[in-house]
Amino acid sequence: MASTESKQATGKSTVTPTTGGITAPAGFKTAGVHCGIKASPSALDLAVLTADTPASAAALFTTNLAQAAPVLVSKKHIEQSHGIAKAVVVNSGCANACTGDSGMEHARRMAEETASAVGCTPDQVLVASTGVIGVGLKIDRVVAGIRAATAAMTRGGGSDAARAIMTTDPFPKECAVLVETPGGTFTVGGMAKGSGMIEPNMATMLGFLTTDAKVSPSLLRRALQESARDTFNAITVDGECSTNDVLFAMASGASGVVIDDASYPALLEGLLTVSKELALGIVRGGEGATKLIAVTVADAATVDAARQVARTIANSLLVKTAVHGADPNWGRILAASGRAGVPFDVSRATVHVGGILMFEKGLPHDEAAPLVAEHMKGTEVQIDMNLGSGGGASATIWTCDLSAEYVRINGEYRT
Amino acid sequence: MASTESKQATGKSTVTPTTGGITAPAGFKTAGVHCGIKASPSALDLAVLTADTPASAAALFTTNLAQAAPVLVSKKHIEQSHGIAKAVVVNSGCANACTGDSGMEHARRMAEETASAVGCTPDQVLVASTGVIGVGLKIDRVVAGIRAATAAMTRGGGSDAARAIMTTDPFPKECAVLVETPGGTFTVGGMAKGSGMIEPNMATMLGFLTTDAKVSPSLLRRALQESARDTFNAITVDGECSTNDVLFAMASGASGVVIDDASYPALLEGLLTVSKELALGIVRGGEGATKLIAVTVADAATVDAARQVARTIANSLLVKTAVHGADPNWGRILAASGRAGVPFDVSRATVHVGGILMFEKGLPHDEAAPLVAEHMKGTEVQIDMNLGSGGGASATIWTCDLSAEYVRINGEYRT
Repeated sequence: MASTESKQATGKSTVTPTTGGITAPAGFKTAGVHCGIKASPSALDLAVLTADTPASAAALFTTNLAQAAPVLVSKKHIEQSHGIAKAVVVNSGCANACTGDSGMEHARRMAEETASAVGCTPDQVLVASTGVIGVGLKIDRVVAGIRAATAAMTRGGGSDAARAIMTTDPFPKECAVLVETPGGTFTVGGMAKGSGMIEPNMATMLGFLTTDAKVSPSLLRRALQESARDTFNAITVDGECSTNDVLFAMASGASGVVIDDASYPALLEGLLTVSKELALGIVRGGEGATKLIAVTVADAATVDAARQVARTIANSLLVKTAVHGADPNWGRILAASGRAGVPFDVSRATVHVGGILMFEKGLPHDEAAPLVAEHMKGTEVQIDMNLGSGGGASATIWTCDLSAEYVRINGEYRT
Repeated sequence: MASTESKQATGKSTVTPTTGGITAPAGFKTAGVHCGIKASPSALDLAVLTADTPASAAALFTTNLAQAAPVLVSKKHIEQSHGIAKAVVVNSGCANACTGDSGMEHARRMAEETASAVGCTPDQVLVASTGVIGVGLKIDRVVAGIRAATAAMTRGGGSDAARAIMTTDPFPKECAVLVETPGGTFTVGGMAKGSGMIEPNMATMLGFLTTDAKVSPSLLRRALQESARDTFNAITVDGECSTNDVLFAMASGASGVVIDDASYPALLEGLLTVSKELALGIVRGGEGATKLIAVTVADAATVDAARQVARTIANSLLVKTAVHGADPNWGRILAASGRAGVPFDVSRATVHVGGILMFEKGLPHDEAAPLVAEHMKGTEVQIDMNLGSGGGASATIWTCDLSAEYVRINGEYRT
């Protein structure tokens, strides 16, 4: 049970890894079950996460105009509940997107069944789905799954839950950290699923974060937005954005450690650490990916400008295929930067790959190519583009290489 | 020789195909030679195009901030000459990009040598290069090639020139049309090269248009911009934009048919027809391409909005791989539209593929999938996204499918 003694997080915080995922923080239970949406009887396809008492909650949703029923329902719920949630219910195998009125009914039904099982109002339940789109949910199976999951919830169910939200992700993604402050220690945990296909359909990113810090819904929301900007929103596999993307955070307060404006940096650091680990896991597990690529753009006029150039490089097919082939092709990095819509002077720009200078003062350093090629044969590739604008702003975007396997996964005829 | 009798183009024009390319219009000669930039002794790698007398000229250049030396030199020349040119010189096999001061000297030298051979000022010569970047031109070979080419120019050299500008384009692209107006007939011709690699480096689009209509540089420029908007600027292979892209147009006036504001539509129609044929040839010959995809977005609020959505669909990796695999995946088309940054109501939108309705009123028409899959197995795929905004504006973008062969071409380690 949650500690009731209240401690004030203050001073400098230290973040260290710990075991577990979404139930590493106190005050949460979870379960992952097979309810029959996925064909294989051993495949988990439904997860429920609950807080022992109604928790502060915050959520970010896909910006795609085509939004799935669970996205629309969760948006409404978190608004109606003023940022309070007691449970999250997630199914994989079916996105419940482009499913019309019956899809909306099914998403509402998922919330209602979960609410009645855990004892809260339906608007204190957030709903997420991932999988094939344009196909209706087998709602009877889902309802049976919700009943089974809510009956089976434990403090140790995190790894089942992390598996139950996967589609064809090559591995589950969960993570937790301890945040120690002079005023007390709290825990942040999370799980995510990335770009996989249950059928050749669109990929979806789902992320779930928990903490036992005591924080208001509004401060949790601010921390979620700020941490996502440089983690979940700073990754790209193929530049696509799904109908179902969601990122939910819940704070149980069970550690008794209170977060206010002064101790906000400690919460932010915890969320950032967990989110970055999960986000990089999504990129590493991207479809057909064999390498993680970090693209850092430095000395831009503004952070937004740096991010825009980094994103253009990270989404460039020519850069992604060059990295796949370990080709030290600085020209593609420069050319992608040059079409990013951000003005800069090419003669002041530099390109480093793996920390090795490849382009400076308008001219290549081709003698570096063999060393750079060695770096690019590894599984982590670092690209640094310095715009030389004098503005000093920088940003990093993470992506993966583009392989023939990506084409195979997404180009196979599905009937 | 050019007719000296002046005729006024008037009334309704008819455009019909004719044989030949850039020398189909009267008043032009050309030659393509091997000068030794490409390794194979049989590979043509330098072309010169001249007008019998100084011609009206117009040019469009890459918008990339990293611009190759020939782009910078040609920009300066067409400005200095106030839109008059007597020759174009093009080499393939080396882009003369990111080559510093010596690259600028080489590009100027190409213009000077051509000018002295054909009898004009250097600023009446436009220069273009395509091929590997960051490598210096073998300028002595290029100069010898210019002398050989200018000595060999004929009215029948068009197909050699079209081959000499290729890198790894799978086929040469040339085309010509007759434009008949009640006031007289003129000819428009052209050649282009697309996305191919001399080494695994960036692709470059070069386009050259000629006409024997008599038209002022300013009106020619207007027609070039307007025709490129819906042709050369409405295609995408991989969303990349090179350091060397150029589109040049020259008007000899040799037909004696005068184009003024009233007869401008006839010139535009001729340029549009030739440009569309060449641009679609570039897409058909795109790296690894097996299918031409036309993406038409209709009923947008503005043409720009329609173009933005069409471009987002056309550059979507998930759409391009689905078309490659003949997968009738309307969900990817809808999801790409939804992230294009143009507001629309999904419940009013429709998606047709091959003219067959796949999505309407928020719901799929999955019964159409087998028929659509048949259409997608062909070499030309038509995607229609209607935004249902009531604005009535539409635009088409052409692209190709994304195959494992694209990854192979661009991912092969180059050393």
